[in-house]
This record gives sequence, C-alpha cells and structure tokens, in this order.
Amino acid sequence: MLKLYGFAVSNYFNMVKLALLEKGVPFEVVDMHGGQGDEFLAISPRGKVPVLQTEQGFINETSVILDYLEDRQSGQALLPAEPHARAYVRSLMREIELYIELPARACYLEVFFGGRVDEAIKAKAKGDLLAGAATLKRHGKFSPYVAGERFSLADIYFLYSFDLACTVAKKLFEIDLLADFPAAKALFALLNQNPHVQQVAADKDAEMAGFLAKVRGGK
Amino acid sequence: MLKLYGFAVSNYFNMVKLALLEKGVPFEVVDMHGGQGDEFLAISPRGKVPVLQTEQGFINETSVILDYLEDRQSGQALLPAEPHARAYVRSLMREIELYIELPARACYLEVFFGGRVDEAIKAKAKGDLLAGAATLKRHGKFSPYVAGERFSLADIYFLYSFDLACTVAKKLFEIDLLADFPAAKALFALLNQNPHVQQVAADKDAEMAGFLAKVRGGK
Repeated sequence: MLKLYGFAVSNYFNMVKLALLEKGVPFEVVDMHGGQGDEFLAISPRGKVPVLQTEQGFINETSVILDYLEDRQSGQALLPAEPHARAYVRSLMREIELYIELPARACYLEVFFGGRVDEAIKAKAKGDLLAGAATLKRHGKFSPYVAGERFSLADIYFLYSFDLACTVAKKLFEIDLLADFPAAKALFALLNQNPHVQQVAADKDAEMAGFLAKVRGGK
Repeated sequence: MLKLYGFAVSNYFNMVKLALLEKGVPFEVVDMHGGQGDEFLAISPRGKVPVLQTEQGFINETSVILDYLEDRQSGQALLPAEPHARAYVRSLMREIELYIELPARACYLEVFFGGRVDEAIKAKAKGDLLAGAATLKRHGKFSPYVAGERFSLADIYFLYSFDLACTVAKKLFEIDLLADFPAAKALFALLNQNPHVQQVAADKDAEMAGFLAKVRGGK
C-alpha cells in the first residue's frame, strides 16, 4: 500500500492527502516532519515533506507525487486526459504555486510562527502576491471549480495555498484578497462542504495546537 | 505549426526551445518579451515568456509546456514512459527549479542587470542556493545525464538553470558551485557538444548585447 510521509499541519502534505482521498486510492500516513538528517535526506533530497513511498521506492515533491498518482491511472482522475485541457489545469496549478504559495510562504515565519521577516522580503512578497492573485482571477474559470466544471488538481492547490495567502495578506498587509473575488469565496465555500476536505481540516485542527507550541518553543 | 513566443536570452524560453529541437518537433519562434499589457496577459496570465501557441490555444509556464509536448507524444520522448522513472526525472526538474533557479533568480537583477538586490534577499538566496546545489548532488545520477543514461528534461533544467546559478554564486558569494562537483562539470561539457545546445547558445549570444543595453538603459 502507498505510504504518505508528512504531518497534518503541512499544506503540501494535505494536497497529496486530499488527492489520494478524492481518487479513492488506499494509503497510510507515516507521521514525519521534514529535516536535514542523513536518514531523511536519503528519501527526500531537500529534506521536505510530503514523500510518497511506493513499491518501487520514494517520490518527493508535491507536484511530482500528484503527477505520479495520475500517471498510475488508478482511481478517479484529477487531470483531464486530453493534452491541451490537461495543460490548462497544470498552468493553474503552477501559477498558484509559483505566484501565490511561494510569496506567501516567504512570510509564514512571521504570520504563523511568531518570528520576524525582513522588510525587503515582505515588500517583495506583497507585490508578488497581489500579482499572483490577479493572475488567478484572470486565468481561472471558477465555474464552479478553478479549471471549469470538474474538480481537479488545480482546486487542491487553490484550497491549500490561496487560503494561507489570504491570511498572510490580511495579517501583514491589511489586504482582503477575496474582497473583489467572489468566485474564489464561493469556491472555498463549496470545497469546504466536501467530506474529504472536512476530514483533512479536522486532522489539521487536531494537530495544530501541539505543532505551534513546538515550533514557537523552538525559537 | 507550433509557435513559441519568447526571446533568445530567456533561459526558460531556451528550455522549451531545446526540448522542441531535441524532440524534432517543427516550430517557429515569435520574438516576444514578457509584459503586463492587457493583450499579452490574455495569452500569458502572469505576463511571462515562454508561451506556446497550439492549434487549440495558448499554453503558459515552462514546465507545463514541456509536459504538454510529452503528452502529445510527438517526436522523441524526453521523459520515461514508466510512472516511477518519470517521477524521478520530474523530481530532479522540480528540485532544480525550486531550489536552484528561484534563489538564483532573486539575484539576477544585481548579477546581470546592473541593479541592486537587498542584503536580506541575497543572504536568503545564498543559503537556499547552497542547499539546492547539495540537493542536486545528492539526488542526481550524472551517469552521464542528470537522471541516468538518457538525456531528459532534467538535463534541460540543469543546463539552463545551474549555469546561471553558478554565475550568481561566483559573482555575489565568491563560491564555485562546481569546485567539488566534477560530475556536473563533466555534464556541462557533454551537453555543450550537442549541436542543438550550440544553436541555442549562438542565438542567445547574438541577442545578448542588444538585450543588456536595453535592460540597463531602462534602469
């Protein structure tokens, strides 16, 4: 059986977990935080989670794991089969990751973990994040899902990246990224009715207090 | 025929261009710089190049275009067919992009274009870049290609990201990323014997002086 290494507070871990649940592919979770020890680097070369253990070995990087799960053709498909439609979904995934997740992530230390982020880094993140949100608004269909009528991997990126980005924008920059983006607000509401999304959220909530105490204690 | 929008100095443009040349898929180049005008944003939602025009419309984001070219199954394959082997190549591509290209890119303004990058951003880039180079060394096979015996998309990322990262490391941090990485040095030498790589480099060299004058003049 597939084993998914990671922890329930990690949004990248939750992307793969939701994909597996939606696909209906059996898996078990191995609780694991990232790290730079030799043993973990041997299965995840940059020391990050999630990592997927298959019968043939380990696979790292969220987007790579998600592609692998599609390539295996087991369970519900979360990418269209036709190459051009598939490219559209993938471009939304990449735009959300590169232009929303990554700038927001540069500020997580300050927003979530009680640390401080340099002003220059925050200023760059702010500009990048606003451009990223505009990109999503421009390119997404939201009818009702990000890429159209069907739930896809783009919705998984949306759900677990754009929500954190909204928190970053509000807390650090006093900007409400959803204010003039009702389609995104409606999609969050729709996705949050999904029982698998609710399960992932419940697992995250159960782990959150302990996680924050550990991270903040380490500072 | 496929049309590739971009310009010969862009390393992301050159990734797609080399992939098309290696695949043997006919294409024509449309000279185009990125931008935030409405007309260009309609075909590239974040305003970046490259963009690929197909019979069905436009595709943006380098990795998405590269995946699309594989999905069309036209020309020489640059990813293995077997899902686990494919995931290995993709993980190397992603590691090079996220952990080498992106930190190096944060410093391009200062290294290549005569601008100044904030010290905090440079300090973060330095740490990220060293960790990224260590990741590549740890995970790549270099036998002789990044992912093994066959040329793949991972070599294209290596060629057009790691070279610039080496320049950034040398100019800003006085670090030679190739000093204890002879396998990478040997692969650069091998790839630079490839006639398509030479063609891409010649096109880049021909455009470089004019490009730098334009960019630096705009500062």
